[in-house]
Amino acid sequence: MNHIKFQSDRELDLIAVGRLGIDLNPNEINRPLEESITFTRYVGGSPANIAVATSRLDLKTGFIGRVADDQFGTYITNYLKENNIDTNGIVVDKSGAKTGLAFTEVKSPSECSLIMYRNNAVDLKIEPEDISEEYIKKSKAILISGTALAASPSREAVFVALEYARKHGVVVFFDIDYRPYTWKSEAETAVYYSLAAEKSDVIIGTREEFDTIEHLTSPETKDDFVTAKHWFDYNAKIVIIKHGKEGSYAYTDEGDKVKGVVFPVVPLKTFGAGDSYAGALIYGLINDFNIAKAMEFGAASASIVITTNSCSASMPTVGQIEDFIATAKKE
Amino acid sequence: MNHIKFQSDRELDLIAVGRLGIDLNPNEINRPLEESITFTRYVGGSPANIAVATSRLDLKTGFIGRVADDQFGTYITNYLKENNIDTNGIVVDKSGAKTGLAFTEVKSPSECSLIMYRNNAVDLKIEPEDISEEYIKKSKAILISGTALAASPSREAVFVALEYARKHGVVVFFDIDYRPYTWKSEAETAVYYSLAAEKSDVIIGTREEFDTIEHLTSPETKDDFVTAKHWFDYNAKIVIIKHGKEGSYAYTDEGDKVKGVVFPVVPLKTFGAGDSYAGALIYGLINDFNIAKAMEFGAASASIVITTNSCSASMPTVGQIEDFIATAKKE
Amino acid sequence: MNHIKFQSDRELDLIAVGRLGIDLNPNEINRPLEESITFTRYVGGSPANIAVATSRLDLKTGFIGRVADDQFGTYITNYLKENNIDTNGIVVDKSGAKTGLAFTEVKSPSECSLIMYRNNAVDLKIEPEDISEEYIKKSKAILISGTALAASPSREAVFVALEYARKHGVVVFFDIDYRPYTWKSEAETAVYYSLAAEKSDVIIGTREEFDTIEHLTSPETKDDFVTAKHWFDYNAKIVIIKHGKEGSYAYTDEGDKVKGVVFPVVPLKTFGAGDSYAGALIYGLINDFNIAKAMEFGAASASIVITTNSCSASMPTVGQIEDFIATAKKE
Amino acid sequence: MNHIKFQSDRELDLIAVGRLGIDLNPNEINRPLEESITFTRYVGGSPANIAVATSRLDLKTGFIGRVADDQFGTYITNYLKENNIDTNGIVVDKSGAKTGLAFTEVKSPSECSLIMYRNNAVDLKIEPEDISEEYIKKSKAILISGTALAASPSREAVFVALEYARKHGVVVFFDIDYRPYTWKSEAETAVYYSLAAEKSDVIIGTREEFDTIEHLTSPETKDDFVTAKHWFDYNAKIVIIKHGKEGSYAYTDEGDKVKGVVFPVVPLKTFGAGDSYAGALIYGLINDFNIAKAMEFGAASASIVITTNSCSASMPTVGQIEDFIATAKKE
Repeated sequence: MNHIKFQSDRELDLIAVGRLGIDLNPNEINRPLEESITFTRYVGGSPANIAVATSRLDLKTGFIGRVADDQFGTYITNYLKENNIDTNGIVVDKSGAKTGLAFTEVKSPSECSLIMYRNNAVDLKIEPEDISEEYIKKSKAILISGTALAASPSREAVFVALEYARKHGVVVFFDIDYRPYTWKSEAETAVYYSLAAEKSDVIIGTREEFDTIEHLTSPETKDDFVTAKHWFDYNAKIVIIKHGKEGSYAYTDEGDKVKGVVFPVVPLKTFGAGDSYAGALIYGLINDFNIAKAMEFGAASASIVITTNSCSASMPTVGQIEDFIATAKKE
Repeated sequence: MNHIKFQSDRELDLIAVGRLGIDLNPNEINRPLEESITFTRYVGGSPANIAVATSRLDLKTGFIGRVADDQFGTYITNYLKENNIDTNGIVVDKSGAKTGLAFTEVKSPSECSLIMYRNNAVDLKIEPEDISEEYIKKSKAILISGTALAASPSREAVFVALEYARKHGVVVFFDIDYRPYTWKSEAETAVYYSLAAEKSDVIIGTREEFDTIEHLTSPETKDDFVTAKHWFDYNAKIVIIKHGKEGSYAYTDEGDKVKGVVFPVVPLKTFGAGDSYAGALIYGLINDFNIAKAMEFGAASASIVITTNSCSASMPTVGQIEDFIATAKKE
Repeated sequence: MNHIKFQSDRELDLIAVGRLGIDLNPNEINRPLEESITFTRYVGGSPANIAVATSRLDLKTGFIGRVADDQFGTYITNYLKENNIDTNGIVVDKSGAKTGLAFTEVKSPSECSLIMYRNNAVDLKIEPEDISEEYIKKSKAILISGTALAASPSREAVFVALEYARKHGVVVFFDIDYRPYTWKSEAETAVYYSLAAEKSDVIIGTREEFDTIEHLTSPETKDDFVTAKHWFDYNAKIVIIKHGKEGSYAYTDEGDKVKGVVFPVVPLKTFGAGDSYAGALIYGLINDFNIAKAMEFGAASASIVITTNSCSASMPTVGQIEDFIATAKKE
Repeated sequence: MNHIKFQSDRELDLIAVGRLGIDLNPNEINRPLEESITFTRYVGGSPANIAVATSRLDLKTGFIGRVADDQFGTYITNYLKENNIDTNGIVVDKSGAKTGLAFTEVKSPSECSLIMYRNNAVDLKIEPEDISEEYIKKSKAILISGTALAASPSREAVFVALEYARKHGVVVFFDIDYRPYTWKSEAETAVYYSLAAEKSDVIIGTREEFDTIEHLTSPETKDDFVTAKHWFDYNAKIVIIKHGKEGSYAYTDEGDKVKGVVFPVVPLKTFGAGDSYAGALIYGLINDFNIAKAMEFGAASASIVITTNSCSASMPTVGQIEDFIATAKKE
């Protein structure tokens, strides 16, 4: 019911590539971070969250990434295993690099911020040699998250993964996930995001993120159709552009435009919305939902996660999403 | 009753120089770090702990250091103020550097370890220009912690502080506090520790730490007398060498050797022992205790702190130390 | 007579992009460098040599690159102007970076080596913002040299130039010019060379250079046809693969294979052979020579240059090449 | 006749420590560097020049430093040997670092400038482990040049050399030789120059150089007596402060002030004046000349060198200096 072709004979449904980190969420809610006293730790990082999301939704999920050679690396690997995620693509880094940390601050549902510990972060140490062609060709799809493009050697590892994916008919999902603090300049960002997007089948991002990618080559473009068309000229089949509260739109290389459903909920925080959306959308597309239905699944999953206190730990099951859709009011 | 000459007309008793960090201690005790779920945050870092210790003991205490321009920097500065520490020497760093973190693991009282986040740590960003000659000459003494020598520009800032201290008769306490992970090589360590120790009045360290300092120039020396004599030839008046469970010895440039008292206690952890010892010893020396009495105060303070769950937060008052000494069994 | 389509309405024929350096050639010939006493300086660097070559052949030639803000930068810019090369794309770097130097050693015609000064080389400081879309679209073609991909921000600047070239129908010549000493790893090399080659119309390199590009994705391939076909699947029209003394072969996306002529000469040195070849080949293709004739022009130019003492300074005119061909013995 | 005590039983008179480089001097005189066509290479770098100077004056001279693992490293080592300089302290660097280069420009005798190639310069790669205590204690004196303090690990190596020299009664000559381009900040410069000067017996510099050293701790001082007294409080015996055309003054810890002689000559260039001065002064002091006589020897040597085209290659013999003094007019 959608026109993405997934190879049916693969062992895995999805391999997420890139960042594995730790979120440290204050236990005292709606309080400035300088007054927070105790923190609970969760596995975090956009592709980690998406991998947990798809695994909870019963997709056979694997991961390619580096973890630190310490207790936090052990914790993350154990957590993935407990969530039925294949960890054969996980490499234990020996360089002394540390797990990236995100201390979250939720002063109110609309005032969320982060202190990020990303200096010499272990996830960016993944090397081209860590990428196994054999492993990638076992999967129907891979998920690339933009943060992995921010620095070498992770950047080159991503391009190697993209090369193997294209060579073996593995569908590429590209979640832009742009975090300005990990990049040296906007020009650098635009260059590498473009090179990766050219090799992707499904590209997901906000309007602002697409503007960032295109600011060098098409500084004047702010039009969704022009944006989508640009990527269709390379390899894209679906381009999903999010417009915040106005909702999301999917554009296809067959000329369709699909508006996504929005579920009105009262959030506790905004963190995790994008990752839960992406995970459930990918689930839908791999299960041959039509695009509108896959987007509804994504929106429902996001609505569930933002009403809870965590990201990865709150990823819903298929039953939970279906229940939510069955009972929720749509906008 | 001791032969260190403190200038009596100074506004402050002690200015600690260097590291301000955050400790994240697991709330679940005696458990591997990978299984720890929640953490409580405390102000940490050796000179921070010593400053809190001396302030609790009613010394007028100031601090020279850099904090991050974020909620953790605010938290640390607020905590110092709440503990009556003068923060006029604290500079808010604008480079984007982050607060150093120490995640502590206490598997058992004798199996303690750390995951340190020290990449681009804000405390090492302190610059020579941050050191105010006017501020230093307001104090009877400064406390230098070896970690601040580990990298530029903090290293140069320490030497400027030492220069101002010597120029104005400010007594220099040097706590070696050697942490191998912050140094590039043993040769580098030996060179800068030596240059700082040459300008110090009281030097405190373990036998192993003194060996590290001397390994280039006197690789064969393991004798306390030879070590102490070497530093007396520069500016040292007292050299305190700790021999773990065998206790500590103070050597003076007047030829005395004083063995410190040991209080047998059942510890919860080892963290904080050295800092609480140094803080109470400094208190004693500034209050003109004789050396044995000052060492007893240090040992009592350490014994109190290691039976608690934290470092800075557990620093005792004079009354608590006196009560402890009055009731404790000595070895 | 060849199937590359050049836009006829452009002001410039070719813009070379990348390295401008200085060669320092010993005046004493056939002597080890440690015994060389005096040196003569020449403008060097592969794209600089090619630009001089095409300008001598009456192509309207421009250059995009950075020069140092010192006397050597002035010398290079002046030399390009004297050689009728448009310097509007030259940026004077203000970062303190220095001109790359190459000290050449010619112990015998077959024993040539180099001492390269490439640390913080100014040519690699060119930034994406230095690349003018207006300037690139004034030209029929651009010449990219692989060295410019070796480091940021030059690497990103090249991709921006490639993007503008493709957008405006500017033909892209890609001279692989692989210099191992400027790269961090073979994987990095393979990734960025591939990304650039995918966007190029004419790719020129040795068999070994193509192997380097392909070693990650096709480690087993050593076959010219497979190599050429790979790039035809992207944008390539002509792939030229050099096999040293066995000569060069051109492959076209129309299925042709053309063997290049070889002129037997007695060389003084090997330096400059590739650049003079590329310059004259480009001249031929832009002037709509058939491929065999363009390759003959390239081979003749190379044969002239390697019998002289310098590179850029020895680039021949059309008349000199025609005379050489008329009188030379071919193999 | 001077009060420096040199150990008489040493194999070597002087070991110079630090920079070995190459000067490339244009053969066309009084011309801007951008118009210079051919260059002659010489061994250069301040301590290299001084070592050649003292060896020409028949002092038994050694060198401690690193050279590149290429033809330029071989050239430098050979040149030292040809000049009877002991090269047992020379280490061939294996890190790929390159010989520092100085391209000299002499537009007129009073308009001299340099293009320096100092990025990743091999001389700054010397490590503490390269410094042999056995070697240093074979010498009467060592010569430290300030440039070696500019970066790690060379900086630490110098402090190790100073430690060994003090331990074994080896006289320390410290030539400030301040080159702003190799330092990160003025504060860093002041800190390390001070730490080195504190351990030196004879300190030689211009008034401006001493101001640079003292700008943090005594920003107001511009008085020679105050400057000299500051260093006498550490280990200095003689402080020589140069005031350009007004001549040089030597101050001693015994309270003497000696004005140096100036020989009026018509210079070709200014390069090499300081190094030839230092070399002949050291010769004089080691040979127990009185200070005025040693300064006259220094001034004569400088006057000879600045009327020639090179530095190291023009260092005079004792006979040449004596002849010059015998015939020269003094100011």
